[in-house]
Amino acid sequence: MISSTRAEIITIGDEILFGQIIDTNTQWIGTQLTDIGIRPTRKTSVGDNKQDILSAFTEASQRASVIIVTGGLGPTRDDITKHTFCEYFHTELEINQDALALVTSFFAKRGRVMTELNIQQAALPKNCTYIPNLWGTAPGMWFEKDNVVYVSLPGVPYEMKNLMEHEILPRLKARFSTTIIQHKSIRTIGIGESFLAEKIADWETALPEHIKLAYLPHFGQVRLRLTGTGTDQGILDRDLQAQVSAVTPLIEEFIFGYDLDELETVVGSLLKENNATLGTAESCTGGYVASRITSVSGSSQYFEGSVVSYSNAVKTNVLGVKKETLLEFGAVSEQTAREMAEGARKVLNTTFAIATTGIAGPDGGTPDKPVGTVWIACATPNETFTQLLSLRNDRKINIELTSSYALNLLRKTILKGNLIVQG
Amino acid sequence: MISSTRAEIITIGDEILFGQIIDTNTQWIGTQLTDIGIRPTRKTSVGDNKQDILSAFTEASQRASVIIVTGGLGPTRDDITKHTFCEYFHTELEINQDALALVTSFFAKRGRVMTELNIQQAALPKNCTYIPNLWGTAPGMWFEKDNVVYVSLPGVPYEMKNLMEHEILPRLKARFSTTIIQHKSIRTIGIGESFLAEKIADWETALPEHIKLAYLPHFGQVRLRLTGTGTDQGILDRDLQAQVSAVTPLIEEFIFGYDLDELETVVGSLLKENNATLGTAESCTGGYVASRITSVSGSSQYFEGSVVSYSNAVKTNVLGVKKETLLEFGAVSEQTAREMAEGARKVLNTTFAIATTGIAGPDGGTPDKPVGTVWIACATPNETFTQLLSLRNDRKINIELTSSYALNLLRKTILKGNLIVQG
Repeated sequence: MISSTRAEIITIGDEILFGQIIDTNTQWIGTQLTDIGIRPTRKTSVGDNKQDILSAFTEASQRASVIIVTGGLGPTRDDITKHTFCEYFHTELEINQDALALVTSFFAKRGRVMTELNIQQAALPKNCTYIPNLWGTAPGMWFEKDNVVYVSLPGVPYEMKNLMEHEILPRLKARFSTTIIQHKSIRTIGIGESFLAEKIADWETALPEHIKLAYLPHFGQVRLRLTGTGTDQGILDRDLQAQVSAVTPLIEEFIFGYDLDELETVVGSLLKENNATLGTAESCTGGYVASRITSVSGSSQYFEGSVVSYSNAVKTNVLGVKKETLLEFGAVSEQTAREMAEGARKVLNTTFAIATTGIAGPDGGTPDKPVGTVWIACATPNETFTQLLSLRNDRKINIELTSSYALNLLRKTILKGNLIVQG
Repeated sequence: MISSTRAEIITIGDEILFGQIIDTNTQWIGTQLTDIGIRPTRKTSVGDNKQDILSAFTEASQRASVIIVTGGLGPTRDDITKHTFCEYFHTELEINQDALALVTSFFAKRGRVMTELNIQQAALPKNCTYIPNLWGTAPGMWFEKDNVVYVSLPGVPYEMKNLMEHEILPRLKARFSTTIIQHKSIRTIGIGESFLAEKIADWETALPEHIKLAYLPHFGQVRLRLTGTGTDQGILDRDLQAQVSAVTPLIEEFIFGYDLDELETVVGSLLKENNATLGTAESCTGGYVASRITSVSGSSQYFEGSVVSYSNAVKTNVLGVKKETLLEFGAVSEQTAREMAEGARKVLNTTFAIATTGIAGPDGGTPDKPVGTVWIACATPNETFTQLLSLRNDRKINIELTSSYALNLLRKTILKGNLIVQG
């Protein structure tokens, strides 16, 4: 096994250490490096403290050939990355004229006045290669020393991603890529990690040396990720595909997709294939199912809309749920879920409609219907399917799980209609 | 200034390095440690590789007194944390009878069969203090060596958080807390970081040594975070509050809240204070505004529901937008936004309604109405206010920004009605 180029990612900022923001940058950088065969081996977050940053640079340079640094480049005073690079490389800042021209035009285009702080954003360590940032005001920087590449990027995700995609990844690829790391994922819902593991134990034991398996549980789903390493793309693809084909029959009823598939994209494709349309009627999910569906670009092709019926009044007045149903069975009941789905199909004029009603928590539970009691329904032109969920004590988790199970109920309903046998 | 206890957080798992999951654990741990006066100074992520984990332990133990380790404790084979602790402490695993009893009862209660993998979860390094996990099957562990505390927790957020809250934080607090770190945040919307910085430059320069300022931009908002360090809670509170009071008048029109306030909680409080109700009519946000509002526990007190009118048919049939309006001005227009908001007020029978319609992207833009063109509206019993937004090229960002600006428009509208002068 040829070991690939090792990379480390360093994020700078007290806000990350103190937990004031969630860092999503390093996750994305990890996927991008992996895709070009550079192996992320460590991520480090340090605060806005020069000594801590210097020691993180020194340590990383002893282990890795690529060091990606994000954050600490904004115009305000808490940002010290550039000064620290100067100290690290024994150099100083000077205004880079190209960077200044770009930042000037950035402000001119937007008709905004440039401040002294913005001008200082064009001051760069003398030894850096300037990487123009067309998406913001803080330039990217590329340094090389003792065969280690240091890349410094702003922490704003939109700017960082564009700089990586357009400038940094092509350069890194040209310079380092040799071995290939490839992933295949199998995405399941409705089975726990250890039960899944039992079902595929023999297959897992027989995996070849160059293919590694990880279980990634997330809100009722478990993703099985196969990571293959090799030097020949074709052979690696074939080996991974063979393993996917071998494991699929063992757990088929739980698989909803592969690789980048999400329930909302899988459901979207099924709807398009069937020339069908969808609406939702949401109580406990409060619009979250609709928002997942519409997070997919092009969803207007099959998604008509939603009625979020948080109150009983909206359930009866807009969706046509019968008052007697609410009185007799309550808002959280199979009957109400059914009438919500059927009402949404009618009022939104769609092929299918899914409905959710439940007690998300933390309040509102009763001995009969504790927090986490949820009914979901899926109405079709012919009949309506319902399902009872017994979830957790956590509002956010309950909303996430309900939305996933509702999308999965729709998925299985559509597949059943096509006589494709699935779980 | 007494320096506080330093802590480092180590996460274990290839899935984090490769970017297969977003790590939210360390963010949360960072806030919790900070709250008890323990300063997070570094976060490190390493893969499922014994050598990398060992070197992370060794390095962290040279810098910090508290090391929190998460991940790598699941039942499946890719998890190696416990074995690595054994090697690090020169000890071995043995079945802990208390842990075994707990894991057995965990499965019994759920009527599930325990597998051999689950039994092995009760095997712990001999030198650890066993921390019972009442929320899952992987025990917590507490180690001490050379005045450094090592805590090992499962990576599942729900289990990790409960273990931290109920077991780990109280022990850490009892043992280490001396100095106090306190935060105050001022939350703004509608002004960029550097413009904010210019407005408060003099105030920032005059901040005392023990209070530090950070700018935390996030989706159209900038949070100003003041971090104070001291030994007397009362004095620190007073000092921080004085700074908040001093800076507020300089930027009042942009402030929507403080500390943990979010637009959805601020708006919720305003609605409750005014005995008012709310509905939404959403096109480009696809239910995301409703889902933000209902993410707040207790929102059923003021939130009636939403009509997500993704198609023109739903706009006319459910919300009563005139066909002529759509023909003459288009779905993305001031007129349509206005009629959507007014229609939602009627059909959902609410005091206020907010509406969104725009081109989220990446497709659907025209020269006249490029991607990022969005109209929002807020209907009240007396009149309807509208606002044009010119946003970005990114679907997710546009949905986020639109939802925030729509909530902010509602906030300002309610405040105006109360004759409270705000921006």
